[in-house]
Amino acid sequence: MADATIPHTGLILRPNFSRGLAAPEADPGQICRLAQPLALDCGRVLEGCTIAYKTYGTLNAQASNAVLICHALTGDQFCASQHPVTGRPGWWELLIGPGKPVDTSRFFVICANVIGGCMGSTGPSDCDPVTGRTYGLAFPLITIRDMVRAQALLLDALGIDKVLCVLGGSMGGMQVLQWASSYPQRVLSAIAIATAARHSAQNIAFHEVGRQAIMADPDWRDGAYEDAGVRPAKGLAVARMAAHITYLSETALQRKFGRSLQNREEFSFAFRPDFQIESYLHHQGQSFVERFDANSYLYITRAMDYFDLAADHDGALAEAFRGSKTRFCLIAFSSDWLFPPAENKRIAHALNAAAANVSYVEIETDRGHDAFLLDEPEMFSTVRGFLNAVGARRGLS
Amino acid sequence: MADATIPHTGLILRPNFSRGLAAPEADPGQICRLAQPLALDCGRVLEGCTIAYKTYGTLNAQASNAVLICHALTGDQFCASQHPVTGRPGWWELLIGPGKPVDTSRFFVICANVIGGCMGSTGPSDCDPVTGRTYGLAFPLITIRDMVRAQALLLDALGIDKVLCVLGGSMGGMQVLQWASSYPQRVLSAIAIATAARHSAQNIAFHEVGRQAIMADPDWRDGAYEDAGVRPAKGLAVARMAAHITYLSETALQRKFGRSLQNREEFSFAFRPDFQIESYLHHQGQSFVERFDANSYLYITRAMDYFDLAADHDGALAEAFRGSKTRFCLIAFSSDWLFPPAENKRIAHALNAAAANVSYVEIETDRGHDAFLLDEPEMFSTVRGFLNAVGARRGLS
Repeated sequence: MADATIPHTGLILRPNFSRGLAAPEADPGQICRLAQPLALDCGRVLEGCTIAYKTYGTLNAQASNAVLICHALTGDQFCASQHPVTGRPGWWELLIGPGKPVDTSRFFVICANVIGGCMGSTGPSDCDPVTGRTYGLAFPLITIRDMVRAQALLLDALGIDKVLCVLGGSMGGMQVLQWASSYPQRVLSAIAIATAARHSAQNIAFHEVGRQAIMADPDWRDGAYEDAGVRPAKGLAVARMAAHITYLSETALQRKFGRSLQNREEFSFAFRPDFQIESYLHHQGQSFVERFDANSYLYITRAMDYFDLAADHDGALAEAFRGSKTRFCLIAFSSDWLFPPAENKRIAHALNAAAANVSYVEIETDRGHDAFLLDEPEMFSTVRGFLNAVGARRGLS
Repeated sequence: MADATIPHTGLILRPNFSRGLAAPEADPGQICRLAQPLALDCGRVLEGCTIAYKTYGTLNAQASNAVLICHALTGDQFCASQHPVTGRPGWWELLIGPGKPVDTSRFFVICANVIGGCMGSTGPSDCDPVTGRTYGLAFPLITIRDMVRAQALLLDALGIDKVLCVLGGSMGGMQVLQWASSYPQRVLSAIAIATAARHSAQNIAFHEVGRQAIMADPDWRDGAYEDAGVRPAKGLAVARMAAHITYLSETALQRKFGRSLQNREEFSFAFRPDFQIESYLHHQGQSFVERFDANSYLYITRAMDYFDLAADHDGALAEAFRGSKTRFCLIAFSSDWLFPPAENKRIAHALNAAAANVSYVEIETDRGHDAFLLDEPEMFSTVRGFLNAVGARRGLS
């Protein structure tokens, strides 16, 4: 175990020690330096890989109550505790905590920053041990399977052979599916929310727009902005704004913002944000660049684009789960057009074809993809009920 | 009448004279310098406004066979003839021409570049007569109503009091609705395709992303790039790529591109366009910057954002058409998520409430918003039938 620094912030992640944190009351989480080299899908090997993670609750003596949370594209390990940079509550505090659907008074929750990320796990902002300089684009491209492989090594280090459940939404759901496929014997149950077994052409297209926005920023400097002491903030903000539209639904945008003006009665007849929706998007872009790294955004979006679980099985998704004893729960949201119900159903059909145990829940909401992060009682009751059932099967009180 | 130059190309638009054209066989169209000043919604006045336009067919002695075509955001007056810059066929040649649904052997078709545009009509790339320098952001913000007002003055100059039909899709449809509302006595019939009576929050959001991409490009120079001899090509390409996704449907993208790779068998594990959809988007971005001006993109997207026909009537859309004798035809496409059928139906309901004559056609297709520019037989037969009927009413053979 060693320290890890969060890029751009100077914040140091170390076990239960909060020196240098922007939100000093926040627990910075733990870090684990992998003893083994990490072999990647691209053929390269990462030596001395660091995994930054955060745990909640207590591992029982049988190590049978572990729940692994997989985060989405711009998430991190702070799913159920204050974010050390922004000071905001954990991104899934509605779902995870004492008495919550993922009850940390019963379960031992682990959440790790993905490799390629920028919250302490090894990523493009880290120092390349070979050159002694920041990786930048010298960092190898990673895949969803690589992220999962790193998490498996973390569980090894924590002495956890089998998790009660692996749970995630969006890109987190991709990891859930990959976990169940790569390590079926280590996953008693799996909850994949608002996700897909492959990234669609439209989703790849939106990601490419975001990447091009970053790369068009002259401060990106072919990825070597760290060493130049600059950051492609404008490009990253544009990327975030474009992506953010896809997280919401047309209906929700119309309901929340419509054509309302921001702090004015009439049009300005100038190029400033007249509409509330514009101010909102600007805010999303600005707050994002304060907490996220542009190269990590490139690497993680690419990992999602490359994800196609069926492709590893000659196009037959069911083969990814053949013989699986894992119990699956799939949750989709009716107005999610980024990972629409049809893509979630496709997973359910494949699991059925593989004779796996699966339940599929489609929740009616107008909140779009972001619903998985919001107050959605039907999602909460589904997760609570499912976890209680698998917990009972494993003899948890 | 005077010459007009197309920005960035050195191409000169003048009546039936093609000197300097990239595609010398193309007819460069006509230009009209308005004798009157053009009063704008923003309160400013444009003096010496130029309208670049193109006509097809012959105006009859009664001047009763005129059909006005209104173009979309990135369209121009070359709806039915070769584009003088790109050399490509007219953008609506499938619909307009001899024997086509808009039959130029019967009808006199007029199509004018909108003010604020970059194909010869007065816009931000023109010389500001006050300063003697390129307008840039000194150009006044324009609205859909301003565009229509300029077209009305053009019709005055051409001696056309009343058009048989005004027809357009997308932003062209907005102009159609504005025409029918502002000048009901000059519009015998109106065909609005894949459009809306107001720009939605989601559409404003996508436009703002595009504008921010342009403005984030350091070569934009606060709009003064012309005088600096540069162009914000990267930002404009990103804006076009983002917009282009919204012109298609998720289904069509999956059908056309899916996850197919471009000229390769395996992932590159690098940040180059591995997927066909990425290469396609890059091509769309690149070809766009060769023919379009970044500031015009800012101005025209803003005009669309500001469009809300009901707002001029205390929120009651029906009042925009009260007492109208115009015959309306509305056409929507099932998979259009930029201007969805619901927005088109909203116009139909308002016209019904105003006791206007309206027919509404919803066409089943997976091609998304772009369907209005494509080979859609049901659209063609609808337009042909509607025009024949209104032509017969006006005594045209």
